[in-house]
Amino acid sequence: MSVRPVPVTAFEPGKGLLPELQRLIQRSVIPYQYEILNDGIPGVEKSHALENLRLAARKMQGGEIAKDAFYGMVFQDSDLAKWLEAACYSLAFCPDAELEGKIDSVIDLLEQAQGEDGYLNSYFTVKEPERRWTNLQEAHELYCAGHLIEAACAHYEVTGSARLLQIMERNADCIYRHFMEECPHGYSGHPEIELALLRLYQATGKEKYLELSRHFLEVRGEAPNYFIEEKKVRGWNVWGTDGNDAQDTDYTQSTKPVREQTEAVGHAVRAVYLYTAMADLAAQTGDERLKTACEALWNSITRRKMYVTGGIGSTVLGEAFTVDYDLPNDTVYAETCASIGLIFFARQMLRLTEKGEYADVMERALYNTVLGGMQLDGKRFFYVNPLEVTPGISGKAVTQRHVLPQRPQWYACACCPPNVARLLSSLGSYAYTQGDNTLYAHLYLGGTVKTGWGYSLTCETEYPFRGEVKYTFHGEASAALAFRIPGWSEKTALTLNGKAIDLSDAGKTGYAKLSGAFHEGDEIVLTLDLTPRKVYSSPKVPADTGKVAFQRGPLIYCAEGVDNGGEVLALSVDKSGEPVDAGQAKDLGLPMLEVPGWRAKDQEELYSFRRPERKVVKLRLIPYYAWGNRGLNQMRVWLPEE
Amino acid sequence: MSVRPVPVTAFEPGKGLLPELQRLIQRSVIPYQYEILNDGIPGVEKSHALENLRLAARKMQGGEIAKDAFYGMVFQDSDLAKWLEAACYSLAFCPDAELEGKIDSVIDLLEQAQGEDGYLNSYFTVKEPERRWTNLQEAHELYCAGHLIEAACAHYEVTGSARLLQIMERNADCIYRHFMEECPHGYSGHPEIELALLRLYQATGKEKYLELSRHFLEVRGEAPNYFIEEKKVRGWNVWGTDGNDAQDTDYTQSTKPVREQTEAVGHAVRAVYLYTAMADLAAQTGDERLKTACEALWNSITRRKMYVTGGIGSTVLGEAFTVDYDLPNDTVYAETCASIGLIFFARQMLRLTEKGEYADVMERALYNTVLGGMQLDGKRFFYVNPLEVTPGISGKAVTQRHVLPQRPQWYACACCPPNVARLLSSLGSYAYTQGDNTLYAHLYLGGTVKTGWGYSLTCETEYPFRGEVKYTFHGEASAALAFRIPGWSEKTALTLNGKAIDLSDAGKTGYAKLSGAFHEGDEIVLTLDLTPRKVYSSPKVPADTGKVAFQRGPLIYCAEGVDNGGEVLALSVDKSGEPVDAGQAKDLGLPMLEVPGWRAKDQEELYSFRRPERKVVKLRLIPYYAWGNRGLNQMRVWLPEE
Repeated sequence: MSVRPVPVTAFEPGKGLLPELQRLIQRSVIPYQYEILNDGIPGVEKSHALENLRLAARKMQGGEIAKDAFYGMVFQDSDLAKWLEAACYSLAFCPDAELEGKIDSVIDLLEQAQGEDGYLNSYFTVKEPERRWTNLQEAHELYCAGHLIEAACAHYEVTGSARLLQIMERNADCIYRHFMEECPHGYSGHPEIELALLRLYQATGKEKYLELSRHFLEVRGEAPNYFIEEKKVRGWNVWGTDGNDAQDTDYTQSTKPVREQTEAVGHAVRAVYLYTAMADLAAQTGDERLKTACEALWNSITRRKMYVTGGIGSTVLGEAFTVDYDLPNDTVYAETCASIGLIFFARQMLRLTEKGEYADVMERALYNTVLGGMQLDGKRFFYVNPLEVTPGISGKAVTQRHVLPQRPQWYACACCPPNVARLLSSLGSYAYTQGDNTLYAHLYLGGTVKTGWGYSLTCETEYPFRGEVKYTFHGEASAALAFRIPGWSEKTALTLNGKAIDLSDAGKTGYAKLSGAFHEGDEIVLTLDLTPRKVYSSPKVPADTGKVAFQRGPLIYCAEGVDNGGEVLALSVDKSGEPVDAGQAKDLGLPMLEVPGWRAKDQEELYSFRRPERKVVKLRLIPYYAWGNRGLNQMRVWLPEE
Repeated sequence: MSVRPVPVTAFEPGKGLLPELQRLIQRSVIPYQYEILNDGIPGVEKSHALENLRLAARKMQGGEIAKDAFYGMVFQDSDLAKWLEAACYSLAFCPDAELEGKIDSVIDLLEQAQGEDGYLNSYFTVKEPERRWTNLQEAHELYCAGHLIEAACAHYEVTGSARLLQIMERNADCIYRHFMEECPHGYSGHPEIELALLRLYQATGKEKYLELSRHFLEVRGEAPNYFIEEKKVRGWNVWGTDGNDAQDTDYTQSTKPVREQTEAVGHAVRAVYLYTAMADLAAQTGDERLKTACEALWNSITRRKMYVTGGIGSTVLGEAFTVDYDLPNDTVYAETCASIGLIFFARQMLRLTEKGEYADVMERALYNTVLGGMQLDGKRFFYVNPLEVTPGISGKAVTQRHVLPQRPQWYACACCPPNVARLLSSLGSYAYTQGDNTLYAHLYLGGTVKTGWGYSLTCETEYPFRGEVKYTFHGEASAALAFRIPGWSEKTALTLNGKAIDLSDAGKTGYAKLSGAFHEGDEIVLTLDLTPRKVYSSPKVPADTGKVAFQRGPLIYCAEGVDNGGEVLALSVDKSGEPVDAGQAKDLGLPMLEVPGWRAKDQEELYSFRRPERKVVKLRLIPYYAWGNRGLNQMRVWLPEE
């Protein structure tokens, strides 16, 4: 298969919600996160990520460093790696000498912190030098390496400099030697290295990285289970006795060999990072059994274990998937990183099969859970993305301590914020893939994409708020263009220079195709149907029975107290009513929906034989991603319908 | 206050649901549980409770016993104690020489297992003789003593023999010496000793037991917290590192002195056992501050933290209360023992104030959660009593492992089964209290109660299935009788020898009163309104918004798959419809309700823009207590209403 994402450098953001967010990331989030990683913002949870690296660098240069000078999680390096990757992407569309200087100084540190053998990890270098590779289940050593490799590929792709790439090639060679020779049954408790090595293979063309990635995927889940065997001999724990036990092989997706896995299980982020690598390898090698496994896993997630917001992972216990149709809205986990990983997985699935469903899910996760993971100003983040919040219960009840009703600034475990930054700053390569001479447009991302075929395409749109998406062709070329027709768009129109294109074939794949000779200034206008819609879940989902949600285009909506004069819990929706567009939400400037319904009067008794009296009201709904930006509020995505 | 329960011996069961269950307990449950405690039933979770006591007895008689010969929980003695108490009660209304023999043999063992100083506990005697009284937070030493004291009081009350009472007086004296002199700040992590000592005071008239109970209540929650201090020095844990930490003082209701407690917190069984003792002491001493605290705690539970089934404790994490209005139906705990404790608490509150509300809650917990805790044949038990069960999710999802969709035979932690047995076999003393020359009838329990005032009263009824309750007066006496008018009975009638009695005053207290000269054969007929009703929760309860439950008399109803042709999750109730009586449920022989509604057609997609098609159906509902008796089934108490 030759379909692959366009390079990040091929896309120049234009106007619209997502390009504005890309600029917010560049202008505000990346500098702000650097300050946090550098412990420069008072009152924010300490990161120490840069300082850990400085300590490692000093130690490798012969300095005396106390072991306990290291601070933070065993995977603290990965926060910095993700930031570095995001920073490199942002350089692609907005050169910034100061940022380049910061990037170079981090690369200097990485160079200094690397061992002669290529080993590079601040936790092990500073704190546990004798324990390298002895706790693959918990210690995130290969995970951190994977993130640094991704950063190196991004740096190389954007700047053309191979400096960081070479550092990480040395590191990958170190890993290769250890795992292909000395420890052939080992693999990472937290997948990431697998997808990173495939990327390194793409960047360098060196087969050994493909080989090592395939090796890691293939030894996973072999009997006897590596993590169980490792635990018998390793003699140390990262997490103390509270850690996830090696016996819970589902948690690490190591119960079965990957080609035999059919059900999404365990830690949700780990799962989708693994499946991303599996799909990538299947796309690169044509491995049909791997592809079949990926399809089964995709269906397991998206047909039985995914929230309507594109969130995945139903429980805080192991930050994990549970069982089919168990999708509680209030005790939910739905980690921001898990939806980011689902987007990675979707992008790889799009390489395997031309199927709009994959991009539909990508968009669902992106516009709802991922955007919702960040405050509108980019300064605060959610790790957990609930679909129902009741201040007084959420964040308070022992079962909901993890469900915060407002975004914190930073976390001790800060995986999500820089992950949002790296995804949003590289969105161009999610919006478009190319292959078989066809340019696929998956997202409707304002801006210009340059192809390797002598033409570029400019997209102008106010999507997702308006349904018109105008593409202008630049160049003179014979081209094949494929535009995604979302599953949710009931009445879609496509015109080329004003002439309607027949879409009757688009239903099969979810893509409308145009091919032939195109000319400078040709206009392709896609008109998507953004009629606000009610959404119903399968009656198999206990949490959503009798309830309705709302969607307009890719956006899921929710009700917040501030727009509804008080408790959202007292609201119900009229089953005979339909949602309509209704002005701007107070203090948000975002379009609302209105739907007829009722507000139940409060009752004094806990239980009563009288149905609470109802007052006719219009419920007001805002895009889910904007919830929690206006103080403490009750919030609900799923509302009772009567 | 001189109101108190009638003695167990004053009541002779007649006919009807509860008296039949009392006979089932006597005939089947008590012998069966003895066999389990004696490890005589193959395939059932091992108890070892009797064997532990035999080991302790042999050791106290000079035998060599290995420490690890003890098996089971640190509180394994209490299973036996509760069984013993139940067995004594059953003798009150059904003499049984074989059972008396078993009781005597257990008393022999207790006598032999007791130390010279009066100490008696098989766990500490066999396994940890050096660690007596060093881990009051976790080790249930005073809790086990309390249950044995209760058994002794029951034995004395029913048989008149003081043999066991004297054993337990020696034990109480041992406790008195230790805690009044050597360890004046200590008290039990699991309350029970407090209420037991008050009972021992009633049985013996010895003030020191009242004094010790008051002492335990008054040192509880003093600063510095005893359990935190104890943990610093004790050097051992019962529960390993997974135990509830001493720092969680809410768990043990020790955050504040008891008179300052206003919110029900922590482990739900511990809480209600504590509050029972507090209310008992307030009733015995007229302590107004204690009474005020009890009223606040009662309101905290019954107005904000109680399920419609009378279940309490919203979470498996600490088997505990959470925050107000957090009442999830599927991840619920609602332990059988907690509802039993709530019944204890209600009975003591009835001594403090003549208020039908207390008996209403008693009845709610009894007829729903407590009866539901036992299989109809008395052979299997629930520990956790969910209000919603979905096989495939319940018992499977990591957040619902504790929510079993069918009753097991026995548990490693087997507190609930013998607790049901002792409650049901002593129901007479919950049905009636006496004081101020008045006999109060709280429950409508078929059978005859003898008073100390020269008359008795026979109750005949098919309650709770029919609303007519006939009382026949035996004797010739001037009497004052008070009959509870339940809060749920909208149209109630009371006649004396066919003449209607004015009930307009009964609303104030929830009791209708008759006084004057009564004659042999006088007939009092109470007619309660069992019209099936819809029940609504406060809109503050997130789990129940948009939903309706059903009640007929004291019985809460539920829908099970077997009566409804499949998935209960697909059912919704017509908001304009009313429930009606509708024949007998298949394989149960219990009356059903029917209510108009719909069944949603299953949809293939997880989310759809089409509202699932609905078919008009009659929903069939059975009494909640009978759920789970016909194989694996979806079950719901709260159903969406539209």
